[in-house]
Amino acid sequence: MTRLINLITQTNSIIRRSSTSIGGKTMAKIISGKEVSGQIQAKLREEVGKLSVKPQLAIIQVGSRDDSNVYIKNKIKFAEEAGVLATHHKLPKSTTQEQLIDKLHNLNQDSSVHGIIVQLPLESDSPINTDQITNLIDPEKDVDGLSDINAGKLMHGQVNGMNSYVPCTPFGCLELIKQSGVQIAGSHAVVLGRSKIVGSPMAQLLVWNNATVTIVHSRSKNIPETVRNADIVVAAVGQPFFVKKDWLKPGAVVIDCGITSIPDSTRKSGYRLVGDVDYDQCKEVASAITPVPGGVGPMTVAMLIYNTVDAAKKSLAKSRK
Amino acid sequence: MTRLINLITQTNSIIRRSSTSIGGKTMAKIISGKEVSGQIQAKLREEVGKLSVKPQLAIIQVGSRDDSNVYIKNKIKFAEEAGVLATHHKLPKSTTQEQLIDKLHNLNQDSSVHGIIVQLPLESDSPINTDQITNLIDPEKDVDGLSDINAGKLMHGQVNGMNSYVPCTPFGCLELIKQSGVQIAGSHAVVLGRSKIVGSPMAQLLVWNNATVTIVHSRSKNIPETVRNADIVVAAVGQPFFVKKDWLKPGAVVIDCGITSIPDSTRKSGYRLVGDVDYDQCKEVASAITPVPGGVGPMTVAMLIYNTVDAAKKSLAKSRK
Repeated sequence: MTRLINLITQTNSIIRRSSTSIGGKTMAKIISGKEVSGQIQAKLREEVGKLSVKPQLAIIQVGSRDDSNVYIKNKIKFAEEAGVLATHHKLPKSTTQEQLIDKLHNLNQDSSVHGIIVQLPLESDSPINTDQITNLIDPEKDVDGLSDINAGKLMHGQVNGMNSYVPCTPFGCLELIKQSGVQIAGSHAVVLGRSKIVGSPMAQLLVWNNATVTIVHSRSKNIPETVRNADIVVAAVGQPFFVKKDWLKPGAVVIDCGITSIPDSTRKSGYRLVGDVDYDQCKEVASAITPVPGGVGPMTVAMLIYNTVDAAKKSLAKSRK
Repeated sequence: MTRLINLITQTNSIIRRSSTSIGGKTMAKIISGKEVSGQIQAKLREEVGKLSVKPQLAIIQVGSRDDSNVYIKNKIKFAEEAGVLATHHKLPKSTTQEQLIDKLHNLNQDSSVHGIIVQLPLESDSPINTDQITNLIDPEKDVDGLSDINAGKLMHGQVNGMNSYVPCTPFGCLELIKQSGVQIAGSHAVVLGRSKIVGSPMAQLLVWNNATVTIVHSRSKNIPETVRNADIVVAAVGQPFFVKKDWLKPGAVVIDCGITSIPDSTRKSGYRLVGDVDYDQCKEVASAITPVPGGVGPMTVAMLIYNTVDAAKKSLAKSRK
């Protein structure tokens, strides 16, 4: 954690546009995840250059979903540019649970592999218990931080400790929140969503960074009122334009984890990507906000490679003992 | 979970005094943990009578702290009355970490033992890593639910699932909240405290029972204001009389996990036990409140034995496969 804070020094350049007044309206700073992730990549490349091993991430894919193919391509590209080896283990749709378990066991035992992720969702012909698979990854190589044991360590306040990893999306969001300049300790954060991958670990990360945290979800009532108390809002509900301008306390920091493709006839592609936040409206009230795309997305990839480099360093430290 | 709900049927008798008006003031219902735990004990005894094995809880103690001796005595007494065997493994202060690990390995392997707890804090001459010890208990026997893996399962929404256990104090609090008659789903709960044993798992339990949950802790600001939004308040900060009457929304349900001994010259013993809530004041505003002693305390013991019986049942179900 501390290392990461030291890792990013050029804070000023990260905020593309400082809070400005346009037509009498104060506009939020736009926190660019693209730029922050670029800086993390540069620092990682520098760190990796000093290591006696090349960090290796194994990416397991079952099937060939289009979205997974794109995500994996981005991960491999980022890794390569950071000097990290990302090996793609693409298994056919016919892969059985037993075969996948065998694959995992081999990678767990391979000391040249420092991080392992299973790209979800799987595309398989036979039934595979995803939860069981996630929990078979050696916790010390679980750089996606999705195993029960890493979640428990986070809940117990071990934030990327000696043998633990925080899921990449909330870990990236935390960095973006820090970039906004808001004082997290003592602030009130509202997290919208309680998923295993984003909402739940995000809430814990904020609690252990000393924020008062409210967890809001699909069964919550009075959501606008609750959000209105927040100094920091993290939206991870998967519903386009969910967070409205009049829900925000003026000056709130808004982090948008949503990414949904909606039809848009004005685009050549026929669609565009939007977040969980009504961005155009909310940027008039927030003090800082992340765009979609180019906000949280690139940070998720950056933190995955950060965790992989971290795993390689921990493995080296262990072998020296 | 569902089983437990079915387990307690005589809801009405549990609330010692219904909300009444005294001298024009409406007084809260007093939720008696003593009575609820008694009912759980009776139901457990009935269930245990039908099992083909006697559930066994192993309690490991290092040293002989006075408070630990009292707690262990209470656990053994409750277990005996519920038809559960509680074996007390009292180790000398001179016990080393290695010896404690050996002891745990033996108990993990002993199929007649269904639940294992290590009574904390340890009183030992040599340094013992408590975290490491807690995590060496077989997760399927970890009836205190304090291991990282059980915490992670809870954070991932597995509430006392096939192989998971929820820590006993928050599990007991949840039962008391249910006894108050409040609708948890959609309500706003504020949890004061983020400890591994009470606050953090309590917040997760409430989230997965569909409450909107705010986690407040030592670094939080505006605590009275935050508490004032709560339909349910769980106090677990370890500070006598911390929660004041004017912090409460009228009609809130108040659960007090605190237990501190303070001097009291009017008592023969010279002291009395008080909670984290200013009980005498708060009962004038709350709709239901737990007393100290006789509230959360007895429930912690009851849920430990509940978890032990549950572990025995799961072990039987597994052996039948």
